[in-house]
Amino acid sequence: VRTVKVPLAERSYDILIGPQLLKDLPKYCQSLQLGTRCSIITDSHVGPRYADDLKSSLHQAGYKPDVVTVRAGEKSKGIRTVDYCYDALSLHHLERRSFVIALGGGVVGDLAGFVAATYLRGIPFIQVPTTLLSQVDSSVGGKTGINLRAGKNLVGAFYQPRLVVCDSGTLRTLPRREYVAGIAEVIKYGIIYDASFFNYVEKNMPKILKRDPKILAFVVARCCEIKSEVVGQDETESGTRAILNFGHTIGHAIEAISGYGRYLHGEAISIGQVLATRLSKEVKGLAESDVSRITKVFAAAGLPTKAHISAPMQKRLFDAMRHDKKVSDGEIKFVLAKKIGAVEYGVKVPEETISQLLNS
Amino acid sequence: VRTVKVPLAERSYDILIGPQLLKDLPKYCQSLQLGTRCSIITDSHVGPRYADDLKSSLHQAGYKPDVVTVRAGEKSKGIRTVDYCYDALSLHHLERRSFVIALGGGVVGDLAGFVAATYLRGIPFIQVPTTLLSQVDSSVGGKTGINLRAGKNLVGAFYQPRLVVCDSGTLRTLPRREYVAGIAEVIKYGIIYDASFFNYVEKNMPKILKRDPKILAFVVARCCEIKSEVVGQDETESGTRAILNFGHTIGHAIEAISGYGRYLHGEAISIGQVLATRLSKEVKGLAESDVSRITKVFAAAGLPTKAHISAPMQKRLFDAMRHDKKVSDGEIKFVLAKKIGAVEYGVKVPEETISQLLNS
Repeated sequence: VRTVKVPLAERSYDILIGPQLLKDLPKYCQSLQLGTRCSIITDSHVGPRYADDLKSSLHQAGYKPDVVTVRAGEKSKGIRTVDYCYDALSLHHLERRSFVIALGGGVVGDLAGFVAATYLRGIPFIQVPTTLLSQVDSSVGGKTGINLRAGKNLVGAFYQPRLVVCDSGTLRTLPRREYVAGIAEVIKYGIIYDASFFNYVEKNMPKILKRDPKILAFVVARCCEIKSEVVGQDETESGTRAILNFGHTIGHAIEAISGYGRYLHGEAISIGQVLATRLSKEVKGLAESDVSRITKVFAAAGLPTKAHISAPMQKRLFDAMRHDKKVSDGEIKFVLAKKIGAVEYGVKVPEETISQLLNS
Repeated sequence: VRTVKVPLAERSYDILIGPQLLKDLPKYCQSLQLGTRCSIITDSHVGPRYADDLKSSLHQAGYKPDVVTVRAGEKSKGIRTVDYCYDALSLHHLERRSFVIALGGGVVGDLAGFVAATYLRGIPFIQVPTTLLSQVDSSVGGKTGINLRAGKNLVGAFYQPRLVVCDSGTLRTLPRREYVAGIAEVIKYGIIYDASFFNYVEKNMPKILKRDPKILAFVVARCCEIKSEVVGQDETESGTRAILNFGHTIGHAIEAISGYGRYLHGEAISIGQVLATRLSKEVKGLAESDVSRITKVFAAAGLPTKAHISAPMQKRLFDAMRHDKKVSDGEIKFVLAKKIGAVEYGVKVPEETISQLLNS
């Protein structure tokens, strides 16, 4: 078991990473001194595979678990599902020391995290991310989010889990497309923070694609460490933390205009990162060799690196970017790379520069 | 203008109290260095009276205000109205530095506070409480709350406003019943914290009922000071702050079983406080003379001091109390008075004792 400590004063917590950790979850819960009642929030893909076993092992350990299953997919990250979960929690009589377990990918983590952050003004919550994307991304940082008709993650809370358990075994059964989408975030950590990790990922891509357990454990742990360092410097996203949004301003907009669900999040931010890389060359003088390495590593993973965006769609893309949370008084700002491993945030880019890039 | 400072480190804020402060709101906003866009969340009672003037004065000061009006009444403290507000905020393109102004009573404050706490994971928010209850209670403490079918305030967030403006002028136009309901919280501060303030309220009740401006300004400021001291000691309600719930465990349950809306919150907690006072005599040996003074001061304000609760309703009352957020692993705990001005929290009371009291 690898442990990554996320140091946030009295809200510090551990991320445990390793194979077959799920069966030991009740043991880990016991060290946290929580109440006995708990609700496992999961979805219709992950629930049938893992929820029953988890429920009975919790039950055997003296807990009173309940399983709340929501429909798999991004549509469950909405107010209606939040309301459904609130009702389920109140029917199970959760109290202030009771806890919520998020068992699933990013959607379940964001949803369950928001529900835990707001139910009784906040009850403890444990994250069990079961996808590569959620293990390397949403398990660190305490960001929870809900979509509105107007955009993704427009509603949410900063709320830290009490524990994160990344069971590498759950990654082996992921559909290939979803697994590959997670690699987009893995690559991001190399670009924004750690050139040698970028080299490692570049070199070991075939093994990563084969889901080699040793490589996976290292990769997930290193990503969590990087995210934890970045978040530790800036918990509420007023500064440095913005670098984690590399590729996301365009990526989110692409998701929004394509209709949620056409691209997986990882696919959209793969395209977003490649576009941000090309903008970096224009605006920050990123070397062409770095542009090429970055583009190639996304392609080697099997991720999309471009999208054809027609003129009317471009207008909608800009509208969506202006609507992004990261916008301040109407100006669109980007995270851009100076070289692999070093980026700068808050860079204003004229809309013409972006248009030219999209049309080239 | 009286100023009460609420000291919460980097989240400290001021409460300004005085007549006709509403017209100076844009001036106060300017000192906070917020963005230009703002949404005034108000209700169908308060909005028509004050929102247009506020909107134009903000506009003249260079802000881009929008008015969001919800139906007056407790029913607006639900998920559906939260969703409606989210949509209104996104249509008005609020950004991270934009702000929300809560213009109205406790319902509007709780609703707008929750919306501000969760929109874009939290944007600045200014409270303009226009009722006595909200000026002395919900303007301090950073508690926001939303009702579920299963109970009041089951969902919410701890979120501090950036500024609170209590315009005493808005109290003069309150319906008498609503004004009187607010006095229940005023009396509470005397019982739980300050015997001499209790004496003051007891002696000056006729002037308080006449809404004498000088007396009102002192009363509101003193209540805010007391609440601020209590909250400052315990921001997230893990300890001392519980004393603010004197009378609320029973009061909330009475509201729940009567159907929200039959009793105003202040009326329900008036009954709740009198019952808690009588429990205090049984369990903590509170002097009969104190029981009598407390009961008389609520009666002098014109507040209800008892409710007839039939046997089947008692069962529902206990169910509702068990469902209260303040319950921990199924045990009902009370705040009880040892004498006027000094209470104890976390006191377990056997259900039989409560039943006997209700039947006596």
